[in-house]
Amino acid sequence: MISQTTEYALRAIVYLAMHSDTAFTTLQIAKATRVPPAYLAKVMRALGKANLVNSQRGFGGGFELTRKPSEITFLDVLNAVEPCRRIRKCPLGLESHGVNLCALHKRLDDAAAVIEETFAGVTIADILAKPTKSIPLIETTGVN
Amino acid sequence: MISQTTEYALRAIVYLAMHSDTAFTTLQIAKATRVPPAYLAKVMRALGKANLVNSQRGFGGGFELTRKPSEITFLDVLNAVEPCRRIRKCPLGLESHGVNLCALHKRLDDAAAVIEETFAGVTIADILAKPTKSIPLIETTGVN
Repeated sequence: MISQTTEYALRAIVYLAMHSDTAFTTLQIAKATRVPPAYLAKVMRALGKANLVNSQRGFGGGFELTRKPSEITFLDVLNAVEPCRRIRKCPLGLESHGVNLCALHKRLDDAAAVIEETFAGVTIADILAKPTKSIPLIETTGVN
Repeated sequence: MISQTTEYALRAIVYLAMHSDTAFTTLQIAKATRVPPAYLAKVMRALGKANLVNSQRGFGGGFELTRKPSEITFLDVLNAVEPCRRIRKCPLGLESHGVNLCALHKRLDDAAAVIEETFAGVTIADILAKPTKSIPLIETTGVN
């Protein structure tokens, strides 16, 4: 349900948030987040299109976040790569239904609303502020 | 986020639930649910594999539900076509993380749990028992 692409996009955003004073190339982010570079390149393009990251060309260039981690929610990242579509009118195109959803599509849209709300309730800053014993993306073998 | 495939699968299951005394061919279900037949054939195979429907061959044959609508949840249908994967261990394969998820994957799994719970909380019987003015899958133009 939560796609590979969404998970990869979140890895990239969290990585940039953890190093907010530095710009990184796609290859650098791919290596750090363990995502195949070609796949990550597509993800970064989608994140750029959604204005969550911007990129500078040339020496010292690369990707940076456009906003503070406290201003980026899981929903922002989800919507950049795999929009959380709500059901506004009958997906079958039934004229008599129109915007008056039947019970199936009403309940399905209720579920979409819960998903939207859940993802909107978590910011990237929350991830950084409330760590567990495992640091995101970082192998700590040997450190006790 | 809720895929086309999941929505199509729910249409088919609701259609069969609305006519529980009859078996329907893929073509009949496709027409009634307005889903492209080739696409629906794949969906029906997945629903069969998950043991939500079974099919009888020959004259009068077709698909039927294997259980009562009260015993089929949205989650059952979702899991048949697009499994709701929980995050049990580090998706990056970091040895030091293992089952001790970092904050990113912990929060993402929390979201997956909410989705799972939401979908598990609705049965097909709920759809039939609590109708809105629009009857699922049925055009009612001209009827007031």
